[in-house]
Amino acid sequence: MIALPDVRNAAARIEGRVRRTPVMEVDPTGFVPRGLPVPSKMWLKLEHVQHTGSFKARGAFNRILAASEAGRIPESGVIAASGGNAGLAVAYAAGQIGTKAEVYVPETAPPVKVAKLRALGATVVQVGVKYADAYEAAIKRAEDSGALFCHPYDQPDMCAGAGSIGLELLEQAGGLDTVLCAVGGGGLMAGVAAALEGQAIVVGVEPANAPTLNAALRAGKPVDVEVSGVAADSLGAGRLGEIAYAVAARTGVRSVLVTDDAISEARRRMWDEYRLVIEHGTAAAVAALRTGSYRPRAGERIAILLCGANTDPGDLTT
Amino acid sequence: MIALPDVRNAAARIEGRVRRTPVMEVDPTGFVPRGLPVPSKMWLKLEHVQHTGSFKARGAFNRILAASEAGRIPESGVIAASGGNAGLAVAYAAGQIGTKAEVYVPETAPPVKVAKLRALGATVVQVGVKYADAYEAAIKRAEDSGALFCHPYDQPDMCAGAGSIGLELLEQAGGLDTVLCAVGGGGLMAGVAAALEGQAIVVGVEPANAPTLNAALRAGKPVDVEVSGVAADSLGAGRLGEIAYAVAARTGVRSVLVTDDAISEARRRMWDEYRLVIEHGTAAAVAALRTGSYRPRAGERIAILLCGANTDPGDLTT
Repeated sequence: MIALPDVRNAAARIEGRVRRTPVMEVDPTGFVPRGLPVPSKMWLKLEHVQHTGSFKARGAFNRILAASEAGRIPESGVIAASGGNAGLAVAYAAGQIGTKAEVYVPETAPPVKVAKLRALGATVVQVGVKYADAYEAAIKRAEDSGALFCHPYDQPDMCAGAGSIGLELLEQAGGLDTVLCAVGGGGLMAGVAAALEGQAIVVGVEPANAPTLNAALRAGKPVDVEVSGVAADSLGAGRLGEIAYAVAARTGVRSVLVTDDAISEARRRMWDEYRLVIEHGTAAAVAALRTGSYRPRAGERIAILLCGANTDPGDLTT
Repeated sequence: MIALPDVRNAAARIEGRVRRTPVMEVDPTGFVPRGLPVPSKMWLKLEHVQHTGSFKARGAFNRILAASEAGRIPESGVIAASGGNAGLAVAYAAGQIGTKAEVYVPETAPPVKVAKLRALGATVVQVGVKYADAYEAAIKRAEDSGALFCHPYDQPDMCAGAGSIGLELLEQAGGLDTVLCAVGGGGLMAGVAAALEGQAIVVGVEPANAPTLNAALRAGKPVDVEVSGVAADSLGAGRLGEIAYAVAARTGVRSVLVTDDAISEARRRMWDEYRLVIEHGTAAAVAALRTGSYRPRAGERIAILLCGANTDPGDLTT
């Protein structure tokens, strides 16, 4: 479980290490279907321009720096299991801090992802054919070597680091009612909900074919779900994190589902209308408004977190 | 000629019509070659997320609204000659204001550009094989029909509208010494130099194979230059505007040239490191710092205008 003081500590700890990402006020009318109430204010938080192209750098820095302050980083460095945003973020943060990083990925990981991790200075270990194989091998390796394991979402420091986006956003926007963000394992959602507890509501948006939050709220606890679809590269977690569930239940996080088609359309429109390239997972949060899956109240002040851009822009050619 | 009061009037006139584009503070060390002095502050002005993907919307709105206020928009509407950023901006602004727009382009214009202009509601007229043919036909048509001709850069309202970026930037950054921006016809450079006269210096950056400003400053007046290279789609003017020359001479605008290779590398790095997609012309301004073609002073506060993103992101695939 995490709360506002954890997020405040994280924000102070990672200041200067992460980019203060810009916020852009936008015209709400273009984001809401005709006939629905129109928000009074809308902002896009451009977190996708963060180091390594996603919000994950915040949690990675917080996790590693907190351990470093406590004298808990061993010679063997840090370890992660991810060929995606979390792996890139841990590799980058470790490199900046001057700590060794081992990143476990399946043998099926695309060579371009492996090359990126290596370019950031990480030692890449390829094990098994599925992400779960790499994850298990990483956990075992961390136990053996004593390296600091960096979970992609379900650790308090990871969630609190991500939550620093919420504090930044509140400063930049002045005041807001609702934050829409994509949910995979739920680290971002948990951090931002803790950061804004009592001040704004977080709406967690997921592809209908990757409903970790939705299923957890229905079941009253995190449960395994099948995950597939266009956003599975960034929203690939098969189960909501325990921390994410606890914060969601405590703060009243709402769940909204969107289709793959709506995600692709929202990603396309962000390029066509704003010249912003975002990954499919991130576009889910935009799709929730575009489709009316999230129905705003008249006068509502809404921010959308654009949380990642590790995507191939090739299909946005016009 | 234009000066600060013209820019202030323009900014007030177009407020609410154009996007207030975000500014992002960045770490200067990544922008300057090792061994050179490092600026104390650096910002990117993300003007490429403006309506129609470039700063040109500001000038187009100012030109058409100013004429409208003066009762000078005839039944025949407005007219432009451009298949690029200026044409898109005029088509968009006219559509928003509720005025007809005719846009002249050569018969050789790519169908995708023609389709975009039509999608914005413009009547597209294709004449001749070169831009100059379309331009001449547009001028003649404007004389015949009485339509309001919107020059892509060499009209006071166009320059003053673009200059509103300078006022916005100054508010957002707090204070700055130097603004780097790409120069084609010079409308943006002139507007920003007028906006910041006495407060900051503008450095106009051009591809070495499209040196309109550089040649004008050498000759003491705008002169024809040959234009080619990767940035010619946005920096395609063959001669600096008269207004641009006058403002550049008055305010002490400096000229820097960069190579096509440096432009392509800078565009690539803005995607790799910041997940920002910008067009080649815009990337020239980034390249000036990256290559050391512009050598900052220690402690200098520098902003780079990212002024357009009408580019095919397909080659940024990783």
